[in-house]
Amino acid sequence: MTKAIYPGSFDPITNGHLDIIHRIRPLFSELVVVVANSARKQYLFSLEERVQMLRKNLPAGVKVDRCEGLIVDYAAANNAAVIVRGLRAVSDFEYELAMANMNKNLKDTIETMIVFTRPKFSFVASQMVKEVALHNGQLTGLVPENVARALQTRFTRKGN
Amino acid sequence: MTKAIYPGSFDPITNGHLDIIHRIRPLFSELVVVVANSARKQYLFSLEERVQMLRKNLPAGVKVDRCEGLIVDYAAANNAAVIVRGLRAVSDFEYELAMANMNKNLKDTIETMIVFTRPKFSFVASQMVKEVALHNGQLTGLVPENVARALQTRFTRKGN
Amino acid sequence: MTKAIYPGSFDPITNGHLDIIHRIRPLFSELVVVVANSARKQYLFSLEERVQMLRKNLPAGVKVDRCEGLIVDYAAANNAAVIVRGLRAVSDFEYELAMANMNKNLKDTIETMIVFTRPKFSFVASQMVKEVALHNGQLTGLVPENVARALQTRFTRKGN
Amino acid sequence: MTKAIYPGSFDPITNGHLDIIHRIRPLFSELVVVVANSARKQYLFSLEERVQMLRKNLPAGVKVDRCEGLIVDYAAANNAAVIVRGLRAVSDFEYELAMANMNKNLKDTIETMIVFTRPKFSFVASQMVKEVALHNGQLTGLVPENVARALQTRFTRKGN
Amino acid sequence: MTKAIYPGSFDPITNGHLDIIHRIRPLFSELVVVVANSARKQYLFSLEERVQMLRKNLPAGVKVDRCEGLIVDYAAANNAAVIVRGLRAVSDFEYELAMANMNKNLKDTIETMIVFTRPKFSFVASQMVKEVALHNGQLTGLVPENVARALQTRFTRKGN
Amino acid sequence: MTKAIYPGSFDPITNGHLDIIHRIRPLFSELVVVVANSARKQYLFSLEERVQMLRKNLPAGVKVDRCEGLIVDYAAANNAAVIVRGLRAVSDFEYELAMANMNKNLKDTIETMIVFTRPKFSFVASQMVKEVALHNGQLTGLVPENVARALQTRFTRKGN
Repeated sequence: MTKAIYPGSFDPITNGHLDIIHRIRPLFSELVVVVANSARKQYLFSLEERVQMLRKNLPAGVKVDRCEGLIVDYAAANNAAVIVRGLRAVSDFEYELAMANMNKNLKDTIETMIVFTRPKFSFVASQMVKEVALHNGQLTGLVPENVARALQTRFTRKGN
Repeated sequence: MTKAIYPGSFDPITNGHLDIIHRIRPLFSELVVVVANSARKQYLFSLEERVQMLRKNLPAGVKVDRCEGLIVDYAAANNAAVIVRGLRAVSDFEYELAMANMNKNLKDTIETMIVFTRPKFSFVASQMVKEVALHNGQLTGLVPENVARALQTRFTRKGN
Repeated sequence: MTKAIYPGSFDPITNGHLDIIHRIRPLFSELVVVVANSARKQYLFSLEERVQMLRKNLPAGVKVDRCEGLIVDYAAANNAAVIVRGLRAVSDFEYELAMANMNKNLKDTIETMIVFTRPKFSFVASQMVKEVALHNGQLTGLVPENVARALQTRFTRKGN
Repeated sequence: MTKAIYPGSFDPITNGHLDIIHRIRPLFSELVVVVANSARKQYLFSLEERVQMLRKNLPAGVKVDRCEGLIVDYAAANNAAVIVRGLRAVSDFEYELAMANMNKNLKDTIETMIVFTRPKFSFVASQMVKEVALHNGQLTGLVPENVARALQTRFTRKGN
Repeated sequence: MTKAIYPGSFDPITNGHLDIIHRIRPLFSELVVVVANSARKQYLFSLEERVQMLRKNLPAGVKVDRCEGLIVDYAAANNAAVIVRGLRAVSDFEYELAMANMNKNLKDTIETMIVFTRPKFSFVASQMVKEVALHNGQLTGLVPENVARALQTRFTRKGN
Repeated sequence: MTKAIYPGSFDPITNGHLDIIHRIRPLFSELVVVVANSARKQYLFSLEERVQMLRKNLPAGVKVDRCEGLIVDYAAANNAAVIVRGLRAVSDFEYELAMANMNKNLKDTIETMIVFTRPKFSFVASQMVKEVALHNGQLTGLVPENVARALQTRFTRKGN
């Protein structure tokens, strides 16, 4: 009976994120995807837009929620024992390590667990997807259809 | 109802390994520590010695087993859905990533999940512990007492 | 008969970039240095300034061009089979790997090839050169003379 | 009779920084902590605030100073033979390496020496401390008390 | 008119190596796959076996040769201007960088160029393939058929 | 009045090692180069040969000594407050970090300080130098003359 959360900016959700969600869902009794929003970061999509784009693509039984504070506080307040994070590359590693250690320092009972992105999604970072979309590149296979449309709309509007 | 295995050489078990075992035990319905033995590797302690040293230090409810084949085959044959691995450092990262991807290629239904070693155990690798023991260095805090004694006996015998 | 492009921001060109250009020029039938300009990035020098600073330092037979879209689209539209990138350090590696894989995903027929910066230029990044120039540090050996003058003029103007 | 400087942004000073100061003070005949200020960076605390927060926590015999130019020029002008830097993680490594090589290129007589952060402070970066403070997380053990109070005051003020 | 060599141990050739060979063949006027053999290394397959396994899988127009000395000397003696190497991961990066710089130090006119392994082959190292084969794991998709058979024969023979 | 040691295998000493010795000598009141010998490692040159090759190349005032135990024990027994290590690359980083932390765990009063290898020696590892020598490659600039002769003699003898 272990509850897990999968937090992130999801600005926007990619097929790499969705693959991880599908893989970890059967491993925990409950899984909540938590969309983080920080006053200090700039996002392409608003918190509500990111939540809506996610909701349309989640498998049955996975919930979505928002968090504007520390993720570890969210986990504690919501009885989640595990924070799941996906790792694409070595360069993500040390930030995740430091964050996991900071979280453990703040609440020792909550564990961070890492899953590796599949090779075919290893280059599908939200940042790179936005770069491709900005220049009208092909988004098929990188993000769900509703996200592709949202990206195209966003950048066309900005471009004009 | 997720069964997990925590495989490794455990040559010998360290306090870093034990910390991870204590942390992940509550997260899964069943946890088996799997001592891997490969015909191509040289160990300081025999498979049986490694199993015995482990057994004396495991918390209640954690089992120990042996594996001389592929870990992913062991997991599949024993209905474990998760392989847990501990990561100390970036330099372990890529081997674990390649191994996780190879395992996913061999059995797509089994997930590898990573936990980070606590900072205070970040330098406690079995290899470094053996180096310290070989030169009669202080082992307190690095390994359980029975392992410290076994290391001292082993290296004294060899040194004479 | 292989055409290659060497893209970058070149904000500004350094002696490290020029060394790479001299080394790869003999390997391809045609080499074009492509100055990338993105609406989302801030540059010290304008696209035209960067092109002009480059032009004064290129060996015979190397052309310069501009690109405001995706580099891989530029390569395809201009029949270049190879995108050459220089790598200074491990920390550049993963961005280049992800970018190369994204480009391969967008156009499978175009290859990214990497050359390593010579040791003596290993610390000569445009960003660090600008930092030195900002504080009136010595630029000899780091950038061509016209670039050193442009940097000094730019920062003096800004400083007053 | 070797004089050393320990430069940084110290925005704000953490217990990790202070641990390094205590460890290196006995190794040199003189140690000056140098607070760097760059016109191109944004800080949470002003140069004076950062100097004051430091001053209240320094062990006897350690001085504090300011630098708004190149650190290597400061070292040369103040007869310091060594620049000490702390390294927490691999990801810091290459920036420090490039900076040390650039400094050696500018003044060959000055050496950069690195000490490793203790494991228990390995995740205590100023940036992460600010993130925790922003969300009212627990700061005990991460920063000195006067810094914790300053962080709380700053973010409460900003939050209202 | 640039001749390139693609050196390696190829112990044994994998589908990752073959993918790189297919990708770089069109880029150079001549491509030779060079099987390196060092008196100080232990191989699973003999030099001749490795050459034969390669030969059966090479695309038209690609030659195979042997080298028991320094690769850079082979390149110079055979008028190859480019040494191509494949990179799977950051951990390979620094060895390749040091080797490329050493080669440049020995013969400045020869360039090392790196291509990145495709994501789907990112975990297909010869070493890991041998580990899988040793334990009778599935080799489909990892190596060509004749190599899979050779691996199975080799390990069955050794196992009995 | 700080005494430092610079330990290593020095199998054999390279110009990179000597450069570091020259750079750190002025920073400490005493500097001892400590040749480490471990019963578990294989060396090309015996402990005595390594000591002799070093001795002929050391600047005035630098001593050489041997250590067959733990370096940190040697430092403590000889009143050295600092262990100096050279870092060439990220891949060395984590081993040095773990070793420094283990040493700090064993004797908290001794500090490990790191200096970076100069770019021009960044690829001059003892291992790579031996590989070049084995194949009769050019050793000029990589090692002192007496070491070059010793390498050539060693490999010629072995080769016949």
